[in-house]
Amino acid sequence: MSENSNTYKIHFLPNDKIVEVNGGSTVLDAAHNANIYINSICGGDGICGKCKVILSSGTVDAPTTKLLSKEEVDKDYIIACEAGITSDLQILIPHETRLEGKKILLDQNEQHAMTWKATLDQANFKHDALVKKICLKLEPPTVDDNVADHERLYQAIMMKQGVELNVMQTGYSILKKLPTVLRQEDWTVTVTLGHRGKILEIIDVQPGDTSNTNYGVAIDVGTTTVVACLLEMETSKIVDSEAVYNTQMKFGEDYIQRIIYAIQNEALDEMQRSIVTDINNLISTLVERNSIILEDITAIASAGNTTMHHFLLGLDPERIRKEPYIPTANFIPPIRAIQIGIDINSRGLLYTLPSVSAYVGADITSGATAIRLDKKEMPTLLIDIGTNGEVVLGNEEWMVCCSASAGPAFEGSGIKHGMRAAKGAIEIIHITKEFEVSYSTIGDIPPRGICGSGLLDCIAEMLRSGIIDRSGNFQKGIKTDRLRKKR
Amino acid sequence: MSENSNTYKIHFLPNDKIVEVNGGSTVLDAAHNANIYINSICGGDGICGKCKVILSSGTVDAPTTKLLSKEEVDKDYIIACEAGITSDLQILIPHETRLEGKKILLDQNEQHAMTWKATLDQANFKHDALVKKICLKLEPPTVDDNVADHERLYQAIMMKQGVELNVMQTGYSILKKLPTVLRQEDWTVTVTLGHRGKILEIIDVQPGDTSNTNYGVAIDVGTTTVVACLLEMETSKIVDSEAVYNTQMKFGEDYIQRIIYAIQNEALDEMQRSIVTDINNLISTLVERNSIILEDITAIASAGNTTMHHFLLGLDPERIRKEPYIPTANFIPPIRAIQIGIDINSRGLLYTLPSVSAYVGADITSGATAIRLDKKEMPTLLIDIGTNGEVVLGNEEWMVCCSASAGPAFEGSGIKHGMRAAKGAIEIIHITKEFEVSYSTIGDIPPRGICGSGLLDCIAEMLRSGIIDRSGNFQKGIKTDRLRKKR
Repeated sequence: MSENSNTYKIHFLPNDKIVEVNGGSTVLDAAHNANIYINSICGGDGICGKCKVILSSGTVDAPTTKLLSKEEVDKDYIIACEAGITSDLQILIPHETRLEGKKILLDQNEQHAMTWKATLDQANFKHDALVKKICLKLEPPTVDDNVADHERLYQAIMMKQGVELNVMQTGYSILKKLPTVLRQEDWTVTVTLGHRGKILEIIDVQPGDTSNTNYGVAIDVGTTTVVACLLEMETSKIVDSEAVYNTQMKFGEDYIQRIIYAIQNEALDEMQRSIVTDINNLISTLVERNSIILEDITAIASAGNTTMHHFLLGLDPERIRKEPYIPTANFIPPIRAIQIGIDINSRGLLYTLPSVSAYVGADITSGATAIRLDKKEMPTLLIDIGTNGEVVLGNEEWMVCCSASAGPAFEGSGIKHGMRAAKGAIEIIHITKEFEVSYSTIGDIPPRGICGSGLLDCIAEMLRSGIIDRSGNFQKGIKTDRLRKKR
Repeated sequence: MSENSNTYKIHFLPNDKIVEVNGGSTVLDAAHNANIYINSICGGDGICGKCKVILSSGTVDAPTTKLLSKEEVDKDYIIACEAGITSDLQILIPHETRLEGKKILLDQNEQHAMTWKATLDQANFKHDALVKKICLKLEPPTVDDNVADHERLYQAIMMKQGVELNVMQTGYSILKKLPTVLRQEDWTVTVTLGHRGKILEIIDVQPGDTSNTNYGVAIDVGTTTVVACLLEMETSKIVDSEAVYNTQMKFGEDYIQRIIYAIQNEALDEMQRSIVTDINNLISTLVERNSIILEDITAIASAGNTTMHHFLLGLDPERIRKEPYIPTANFIPPIRAIQIGIDINSRGLLYTLPSVSAYVGADITSGATAIRLDKKEMPTLLIDIGTNGEVVLGNEEWMVCCSASAGPAFEGSGIKHGMRAAKGAIEIIHITKEFEVSYSTIGDIPPRGICGSGLLDCIAEMLRSGIIDRSGNFQKGIKTDRLRKKR
């Protein structure tokens, strides 16, 4: 594509969003700038062809491609990541290229949570918040009781929590403000205590009783979607939740693509900012909608795969991709959320759930923990199909896990009519003995493509009905005109 | 004193230092700017008269004062803190006003150390450095041993140190650089481990073996003098030492004066910077003289009284002065030295030794620990006379301590011919039955004044010889012309 210094207006439909970009940018770049989510499984490498859009007006600089059929070319389809902008454009994003809005993301998420609810209730976790707020009414000092402010506070915490002095730690900034805070509401204070390994850290000290406003955020940092739940820490009750697409998608849909992008473009910082911005956006939505203040969010816990956690913390992900596949860390110690730019209480902690290895992440360990796989007598199977597919088999005595790339396959990477499990995707297929095909789509609307479970059904039914054999080869002698030789 | 915008040259003798100051500054200000230490017990309040100097040439704007005798006024003595500068000046600092240079400070300090050496050797501490450097040769990862970098490091530390995973903590910045550092010298690294309560913190990870360059600095933050010792952490051998006067003296000689100054002038930050600058100057002298680098100083430990520690950490000292005399903290947790501006390894820790109360500081607890008062069978008395005088009585089963203002009295505050225990001070006095007086001075030079031990001797001898009675009243019937009525 040619570079030039002009700026052009790109008008996206049906979103009706206009964005200005520099000449030489691609249509995919423009879509990202406009915060329009479109399919792009290969991350802009011009391989998957999933980012096809319709050029309603204007001109682009695009190579010829085999990724578009003759019909599509006739209908002015172009590959967004390959199309260099050389004029003002009007772009129509067709159904099959569009990513669904966050409502559906969240619906799916809630549906998942409902499915597990019975199991989760059974699991019956003893609730013990990682970060607690306790209200203390201290005895004011006298000449006969002249204990220093800091030790007075420690003694009160010890009395209430039954912990020892040498397992507590106070930050310098807390120490500095302590005398004032203690005397502000006549020796009634609320202490926020957070766990850091075996140490109990004083995260905050506030005047008066604020113990009823202690919130946490749980985030699922997915390769595709990021979901945040706002919780009351005391009760672990979910107050609200929100989801967005992971804006890192512009660096590659698959996380391996993103590692390559990060290394080749020295873009690790940029990619960290991208996911942190997503999280901050989620948090600010939750905070505004529920009229709480950021200061009252004292902890955030993240369950993501190993690579996503590396991106989130800005840790070098390069060796995850290369043999012998070594992460920087599986057990990431708690850090202050602000250290990576997450806006909660300025001393609030980020707990990153532990991974097992480069390709068995905290999403799996948290899943296995949530269903209490470690308490099952019978060997039990947990399957998590996301961008990666992981399978854990185990019980109270042992667990084994394996993982393989899954998402892009199920979401249509390399499959002409493949798509993600969104509205219009064929998800169930039935083939009769007479080789008649019936199907149903998500949302019961006309089909737009075929999703992962549809593909599995399709292959299973073709095998069952004898269209293919165990090796996957088509049986040529079958009496049906549904099986035709490629023209 | 009049304010004006001219600048003047002040030439100090015998130091032969010239400094330029703005008109309206006092001679005491000018001396501080020139880094000349002169007596000033009241901290520039015009009360003690200890900062008297001789005006050799030029004019100053000074009120009449009772702090100078007629003879002194005739000899052009002026009170430095009261004298506003209105022209270029030549100022002679007389013996009695001069503070000794750091050589004597250090000599005194070493003398003290020698006095205690036998006792200290007896105490036989098991040497266990707070911050250690250990060199680790890690096994490089393979497909069969694909432990993550961070956990590989932890495992190696656990093997070598016998500690558990959940008592260790790694800082975010260490985690970020870890993969590169591990591979830089082919999996040989040096880990710096510091104690924070029950947690072992990874303070630094360096490529290769740097375990033989681990230094610490021990500082005695005195109200008057600040002494720093550079130590090899591995052996606890003292490499070098250095001392300066505490430049906070310009805010008041007595630390109560300094608390008042800090509160009245909102000068806590400024006073913290003052002592931190002193410490940084000491450290940079030690570092240059011994050709080591700041990065290799991984810890600093401070023994000072409670108020000095408050100033050092910038903690609010106000309530130390007022009933019921409550410090912000007696047990100050380790903080990173850089948090208060001390220049050592950027993640090096500052350990502040614990105090007991507002007026029983870490100088006493460290002294009692150094002589192992806690191991004595017989009740033992420890007397520490500094700015405050503290007395600890105790043994292995119990200890009691009391304290009272001492230093200013022994250093001549309120006593016309009083002075600190420097060269020329009368330190021993003997009075015969015939009321003849003999004395000896520090340094065996002609007397310049009388120091604390001289004063004690004087009172004791006067009592013994019957010049005064137990109530301190003079006995008028004594046959000697040495006792005369005030004219």
